[in-house]
Amino acid sequence: MFGAVEAGGTKFVCGIGTSPEDLRTVQIPTGEPGITIRSVIGYFRDANVSAIGIGSFGPICTDRSSSNWGFITSTPKLAWRNTDLARPIGKALGVPVGFDTDVNAAALGEARWGAAQGVSDFLYLTVGTGIGGGAVAGGRVVHGKSHPEMGHIRVPHDWNTDPFAGCCPYHGDCLEGLASGPAIETRWGKPAAELPPDHPAWALEARYLALAVNNFICTLSSKRVILGGGVMHQTQLLPLIKTELARLTSGYLELPDLVSPQLGDRAGVCGALVLAEQAQN
Amino acid sequence: MFGAVEAGGTKFVCGIGTSPEDLRTVQIPTGEPGITIRSVIGYFRDANVSAIGIGSFGPICTDRSSSNWGFITSTPKLAWRNTDLARPIGKALGVPVGFDTDVNAAALGEARWGAAQGVSDFLYLTVGTGIGGGAVAGGRVVHGKSHPEMGHIRVPHDWNTDPFAGCCPYHGDCLEGLASGPAIETRWGKPAAELPPDHPAWALEARYLALAVNNFICTLSSKRVILGGGVMHQTQLLPLIKTELARLTSGYLELPDLVSPQLGDRAGVCGALVLAEQAQN
Repeated sequence: MFGAVEAGGTKFVCGIGTSPEDLRTVQIPTGEPGITIRSVIGYFRDANVSAIGIGSFGPICTDRSSSNWGFITSTPKLAWRNTDLARPIGKALGVPVGFDTDVNAAALGEARWGAAQGVSDFLYLTVGTGIGGGAVAGGRVVHGKSHPEMGHIRVPHDWNTDPFAGCCPYHGDCLEGLASGPAIETRWGKPAAELPPDHPAWALEARYLALAVNNFICTLSSKRVILGGGVMHQTQLLPLIKTELARLTSGYLELPDLVSPQLGDRAGVCGALVLAEQAQN
Repeated sequence: MFGAVEAGGTKFVCGIGTSPEDLRTVQIPTGEPGITIRSVIGYFRDANVSAIGIGSFGPICTDRSSSNWGFITSTPKLAWRNTDLARPIGKALGVPVGFDTDVNAAALGEARWGAAQGVSDFLYLTVGTGIGGGAVAGGRVVHGKSHPEMGHIRVPHDWNTDPFAGCCPYHGDCLEGLASGPAIETRWGKPAAELPPDHPAWALEARYLALAVNNFICTLSSKRVILGGGVMHQTQLLPLIKTELARLTSGYLELPDLVSPQLGDRAGVCGALVLAEQAQN
């Protein structure tokens, strides 16, 4: 049995199992780091897992050769800044720990059991409280210097049709600042889930997400793009994005498949099982 | 000895050698495809090369399992659309052929002999007649579905400060439409090389290229970005891009090194030697 943790800004989803079929999960609210980490350790204490995988919100350090490996680093969530997450859990439980971003974990989960099985080059994008992406190129997760921060690309912002200044504390109107769940809520004065399917919010949202997908596929040449996260629960959104992406690319690019995650909101915690397995090997 | 070809829209640079030190090159003007390809074959005919590498303008097909492998495909250069480039050369000379984009070849050249030696994750960007990029992630060239088309990302375009509509025949004001050599010439009515270093063209150019580099590093998390191509011959540009990139990212990202290619304009043809070597193995 493996332990799986999806560490999020509002909750930690923890599970024990070997696959999506047998994985049983609990949710631990994200509180003060010391308390939250002790709760996670307590949950796994007597479970006899052979390794633990953690997919975490970020930015994080995934460089095994660094003394900061396993840390959440410069997150805007101040209480969690420079928090050692992976090592205390591994130490307390005496097992190896795999550690990566929540979106890289989700990409691994979809590759193993979901919408990216057998696809060597794909992108997992989540649109929710934040926007993030995990890319797989030639069958391997793209890490680079640390890990991608896809939510912070800049896309065209027409101030005449959308005078909203964006809500990213670092960049204002980067992609996340314009198109995350909080951006939608701040712009329209209502949570995304309460806006009707024919509300103009969705055409604008599809525009920003199509611009983003265009930029990602121009850079990575992905064969498939999986769009997950809370905002994508709005089922009218995916077809709007497809139409807008075709318009934007004007036939120049062969378009990738745009699909929903087959593991739904469990992609991250399921992918953490893959991280655990990799840590054991 | 290997044969190396950098196939460009205005000239084919052909060379024979094993490294940048001993590589001797000639230039063949890009004319009608049949004539140009015959000239290339003629150049190598009696040279006794054991393999040939071709880095080509695109889009191209690099999928070895496709019957279109070795073709230049949907290029706006109409005479060259759907041209079989690699197979006729390999067949006539009886040697294996390596085939990739000009920018992927340049990335390989810089990795072997230039500014990316020992760097596992980097980006080679060329800014000239067109804009293109070759990415290396985890030590391997990113291919994906076919190959990246980095020049066609969309970046913020402030129509008040820059009313130029862009010159990309597919997208208007994509990156290439706003920041390529022809875009600069069309916007300011003079070739880039004739604009003085303090001309406002350069601050605007640096702005677009910094936006582009921001998007690429948010997607790839590159450790190093090599900026080559004719437009980058303007030495005032690189420091302007660095300053603008630091301003744009606002300290959120750890920035990559921004550097010039060490092989200069020979990166592509030198990288074609690496493609030849790979084809032989």
